[in-house]
Parts: sequence; C-alpha cells; structure tokens
Amino acid sequence: MTGQRFDFSKLIAERVPPGAAGRAAARARYDFGTGFPDPDSFPWQGLHEALGRALKDKGRDLVRYPDPQGHPELREFIADKLKRERGMTVHQDQVLVTGGSGPAIALFVQLLANPGDVLLTEEYTYVGTLGIMRNLKARIVGVATDQEGMRPDALEQVIRDLARFEVKPKMVYTIPSFQNPLGTDMGMQRRKDILAVAQKYSIPIYEDDAYEDLRFEGARSPAIGSYDDSGMVLYSGTFSKILGPAMRVGFLTAPEELLPRINAMHWGRPTSEFATLASLYYLRDHLDDHVDEINGILRTRRDAMIGAIGEYMGSVATVSHPDGGLYLWLGLPEGSSTVAASEKARARGVAYLPGPSFSPSGGGGNYLRLCFGYERPNAIREGIATLAEVFAQQGMLNTKR
Amino acid sequence: MTGQRFDFSKLIAERVPPGAAGRAAARARYDFGTGFPDPDSFPWQGLHEALGRALKDKGRDLVRYPDPQGHPELREFIADKLKRERGMTVHQDQVLVTGGSGPAIALFVQLLANPGDVLLTEEYTYVGTLGIMRNLKARIVGVATDQEGMRPDALEQVIRDLARFEVKPKMVYTIPSFQNPLGTDMGMQRRKDILAVAQKYSIPIYEDDAYEDLRFEGARSPAIGSYDDSGMVLYSGTFSKILGPAMRVGFLTAPEELLPRINAMHWGRPTSEFATLASLYYLRDHLDDHVDEINGILRTRRDAMIGAIGEYMGSVATVSHPDGGLYLWLGLPEGSSTVAASEKARARGVAYLPGPSFSPSGGGGNYLRLCFGYERPNAIREGIATLAEVFAQQGMLNTKR
Repeated sequence: MTGQRFDFSKLIAERVPPGAAGRAAARARYDFGTGFPDPDSFPWQGLHEALGRALKDKGRDLVRYPDPQGHPELREFIADKLKRERGMTVHQDQVLVTGGSGPAIALFVQLLANPGDVLLTEEYTYVGTLGIMRNLKARIVGVATDQEGMRPDALEQVIRDLARFEVKPKMVYTIPSFQNPLGTDMGMQRRKDILAVAQKYSIPIYEDDAYEDLRFEGARSPAIGSYDDSGMVLYSGTFSKILGPAMRVGFLTAPEELLPRINAMHWGRPTSEFATLASLYYLRDHLDDHVDEINGILRTRRDAMIGAIGEYMGSVATVSHPDGGLYLWLGLPEGSSTVAASEKARARGVAYLPGPSFSPSGGGGNYLRLCFGYERPNAIREGIATLAEVFAQQGMLNTKR
Repeated sequence: MTGQRFDFSKLIAERVPPGAAGRAAARARYDFGTGFPDPDSFPWQGLHEALGRALKDKGRDLVRYPDPQGHPELREFIADKLKRERGMTVHQDQVLVTGGSGPAIALFVQLLANPGDVLLTEEYTYVGTLGIMRNLKARIVGVATDQEGMRPDALEQVIRDLARFEVKPKMVYTIPSFQNPLGTDMGMQRRKDILAVAQKYSIPIYEDDAYEDLRFEGARSPAIGSYDDSGMVLYSGTFSKILGPAMRVGFLTAPEELLPRINAMHWGRPTSEFATLASLYYLRDHLDDHVDEINGILRTRRDAMIGAIGEYMGSVATVSHPDGGLYLWLGLPEGSSTVAASEKARARGVAYLPGPSFSPSGGGGNYLRLCFGYERPNAIREGIATLAEVFAQQGMLNTKR
C-alpha cells in the first residue's frame, strides 16, 4: 500500500494515439447527426427467429473458437452476394468477417500506412476513416469531386503534384456509392477511370462500399473491384446499414496473399459468431425483401427532408439529391460557420455534423451533413424548420452577406 | 487491364506482423487441444430466450451505434460482479466491454509495449498472449513458478538481473487463478507479495483473470487488483469460458485516465451489442446456477482425465491437480519431445498442445497441456489411452532413458 497514485504517463507506447471519448453523445430530439437506419424497420423479431434456427443447427459449435476469418457459410454468402450484386469474383478465403466496417477500415489503414505516409481520399469523407488515419499518424490529402464523386483528372493531378516532392501515396480511399457525406455515386465509366489512374501510378485502391445496399433510385454500377484483374483493390462492406450498427457485422475482401497479415492484426478476433450466425440465417431468407422495405422508407425520408429544406431554407441553401444512402450534403452561403451554429442547433434539439468534420484539411466551413435515415417524416419537417430558425438567427440564410 | 499481378510486398507498413493462419484446425476425434468448455451445457436456449427479452426492451437501440465502452448496464453488472466476487472496487466507466479477452490482451500490450520492450510472464503462459507480444515485437522473459504460480522472489530476481543491463520491464503479465497452462492458483498472501514486488519496482501488473469463474474446489482469493490502491493493476476477464468463446464477450478494467487511450486503439469498436445484451440478460438470471452446473461437469472431467493418466501412463508422468480451470499440465521424462509426438498423436485422433508453445524461450519440451473441458468422460478415457500408446511407441513412458 503506497498511498501514491501510480503514474502511467511515461510508460505509454509510442504507437498509442492521444485518446478518444468513451461516452456516446446524448440523443438529440431531432437526430440528423449520425448514420443510423430507421429504428421501426429494424428486424429484431426476424433476427431473433433466425438466431433460434441457427442455434438449433450450430449451437454446440459456439463453445469452440470460431473460424478465424468468420463462419465459412457467411463468407460464402458474402462471396455470392458480391458476385451477384457487385460483379466481383472473390473466393470465400479472401473474405474476413469483421465487427462492422470500422475494424475493416482500421485493418487496411494499418496494413499500408506507416506514420507520415500519404493517403488520398475524396475532399470530404467518412469521419471514422479520417480518425483512424490520423490516429495512425498518416497524412491525408483530399481529391476534388464532382456529381459522380472523386474526379480522375484531379486524382492524377494530386499524384503528380506529390511526385514533385518525391511523395507517393500509399492508398486511394474512396466511397464510390452514395459517398459519405456527399451522396455522390460513380457510374461505370467513372469507376474504370479511377482504377486506370490508380493502375497507371501503381497505388492500391481501398473501395469502401458501405452504402450500396441502400440504393433506392438509379442503376447499380459494378464495384471498382469488379474491373480489377491485377489484385490492387481492397474492399469492405457492412450489414450495419441494413441490420443496425450495434450488430457489428461487416467484412473485407483482399487479395489472398494479404489475408495472413490482416489476420495477424485482427487481434483477439472480436467478431461475435452469435451475431454473424443470426445475420446469416436472417439474410439468407430476407435480404431482398428487407432491403426493399427500408429503401422505400429511406426514399420517403430523403424526399421529406429535401422538401423541408426547400420550404424552410429557400434557394439560399444548396442540397444534394442522392439516389441512395443516408445523407444530404447542405451548403450555406460562403462565410457561414456550421461549426458555430451546431452548438446553437444542439441547444434547440437538432443534431448534425458540420462540414469540417469530413475534411482532411478542416475546410468546408459552410457545409454540413444531415442524416435522413433515423427520424420519421414529421420529425424531419419539424427538425429542419427548427434548424432553419437557428440558421436564420445566425444570419446564415441571407442571400446577401 | 494490365494482366500483371499487383505487388503489395513493398507497401506493407512496418508495424504489420508476418502473418497468422486464417483457418481453424480440423477438429480432432479427442480434442484436448484448445480451451473449449463443454458443448452439452452451453446454454443456447437460455441465451436465445434472454436475447428475446433484451430485444423487446432495447431492440430499437440496436440501430444506433453502441456506447463506445459497451452497454452501461453490462458494465454495471461487471463492476458489481468484480466487487462481489473479486473484492475489486471499479467504476463502470473504468470498464471496456471487448470481444472476448483476446482483444483486451492486445489492447493492454499495445498500450505499454514499444518494439523491443521487455514484458514478464509466468515461465509458461497463454499461447495467445505470447503471440500478441511477439507480433508487437516485445521481448518476453519468463518468471519461475511453484504450486501457487509466479514466485515473488523469482520475479524480484529477474527484475534485478534485467536492471544490471539497464532494462526495466514494462509489465508483469500474470494469470493468478488456474493459470493457463499450469493450473496453479495464487493464495491471498502470494497475490499481495507479487503486488508488493511490482510496487517496489514501479512495474504495472496485468492480471488476466479468465478462469476464476471455473473454480470447483478451494477458497476464492480476491484479485490482485483488490489489494492495489495505487492504480497500477490492469485487469481483464471474459465470459468465453462460461458462455462459449464464439460469443466474444469479455472485458477489461483499467485506471480511468487510461480509458481514452485504450478506446482510441479499440478500432471500429467491434464488440457486438447483440451478443452483449444476450449475455447480460442471461447472466443476470442464471450466472450462479450456470456456473455451478458447468463446474460440476468440469470437476468430473478433471477427475476422469487424472484417473486415466494414472491408469495408462503410470507413475512416469507427472500431472497437475488444479482446483479449477480447464487444463492439466503433464510432464514426461526428460528428453521426451511432446512436439514430435503431437503429430503422431494427431494422426491417431488426439489433439494437445506441447509445452514449448507456452514458453517464452521455447523450453518445456517434455511437457504438454491437456484440456479436459470439451470431451465427455468416456472419450477422455479413450483419448488418454490412445495418447499413452503413442507416447509408449515413442519411448516416452520408460522410467529409464
């Protein structure tokens, strides 16, 4: 008994990032902040029933350590789904089942990025990916986008600009379908063009395909990975958007020679087979019906939110019109500060994420992301009306500034 | 389309370990190899029923991202259990729910160990921990044990010996209760003595308490952490041993100031709330009854295996007699090679892990670990009889060598 408090501060390893919050933010009255799907169509009864069947078949197996890469039947289901829906030819041994797509992102970034390495992303991209890249001390450079997402000419320009400083990026990270936060969707040619640039400069692509299931309009384009015969595309997907993020069931695929190294970093193999078996048995029977159901709901909510923005914010605000996904990208007049306004909005019960959260360089101060997935249409209208009041009070809805 | 195979080999980050197998080994006819509990008492119906109740209460919450440290009610349940059973005073905000104890081990080792740092363990210890430490390029030094596990005098001697080379260990990793693989169990005084040495030299302890629930004989000693008022003990536990490893529900506790950094390395937060809620609702109602049931089964199996070893291997073999846990530690005459014999045994349908797997230095060539948890008593007798034949053919059961 020393009575003295032990001091860990000098013992922390160099690899350890400075720290992350351990608390979830309190739920806002109008929650447009995080990418949650609709709680009313969450299929908990279907999942419970599916789990019951899975446990009757395989309950005894759960006392054993699960297959390190995930249950073979789920990996086969995923490989079939990728073949059918994404045009990709992937063997089940190239699939690793992960606890959502967050761990997949962390594994791919850890696989390639030494501290100081440069990684390319869209000019606005997923907050979680930026956090992982920053925590691993990578440098992130954004690439300009248009209505189809990352621009191939801009990608090539960035690569050439960096080459003048003898810097070669380690990875092109892209979300081609219903990009988070922009909502852009790459057509076939765009996907081929991005791949061609990456191949020309021998920089691997990481294709984050978290949102493709949530397509409620427009034709599906095959994955970038479907055009790659060289084995340079890393890929991940998730069931979080259709079965809920708390399930923690996602997956990655990679060239088979990389799996041993990825497995070695998949410390302790945290993916629950209880959750993966429930997901497998549920999705085998209900994938298409369930996806149709939630996409109908999401489409209605997208339209409700776009309509309310038009009604309450007028022509001053610009807003995306995505064919799928969960998000709208809202632009306000130059000089607006969506960061400053977010606290005021939160005080009025409305949560959103300001643009700079998504920017490698902290830009986009007059933009914000709104998730239309979680709230019902009435609440969406109320929340947007409140938000418009906050923005008006901040002088952000004036045409002249 | 290049036709050329992309070469990742020069792009792999320095932190990435060489690689781990992605396949589970085929199940042996007599599986004494891995630490599996009994499949017949795995409470899959109880868990399914508990999950149904949990989903009725909280199903809508599963569309939201779970609390980063794990569901608050489960963290409270864990804090209560640690208070009641382990004498530890831990706030729920010091608890992180993990996907089994493997991720907890990986987090603690990553937190403290730079490449080249020295970590101390018992002279034989958990294979998974050794793998993680080696993959993170730590150097591991084993500390001599007796029938109560790690010896305080040996611990102090190792610390002093290393100090002569200006090396200070970063961590004392110990499994005080039903040590894996030795089966040793520290009494109260031993726990205090180990803590006193660690405090004297200001080296944090990591107490891996994976097996304490599986106590079927002997009095429970409080955790080492219960005697520590300085905040130098890191601690982890797991429900894998009572609810099955495939559930992937375990936890760690640490001084509160360390949680932000640990959370930051808990990439993507892979722990399934589907599995944790089922575990919580099941354990709230059934913890004591279920533990009593499986401990009755394990005790019978321990006795069946010790009896069969005595009958078929005679007095040449030495064997541990643990008061709990899942493992026996079997010693054969000097010069025996349990590594060489393991392939022969596997060919006859018997799986075990040879001693060198557990040794930081690769020693213990005449020892092996047997798990008595998975097979029924009849199969245990048959498997041990077969194993004795293999050992006899290898000349390992001769008294004179």
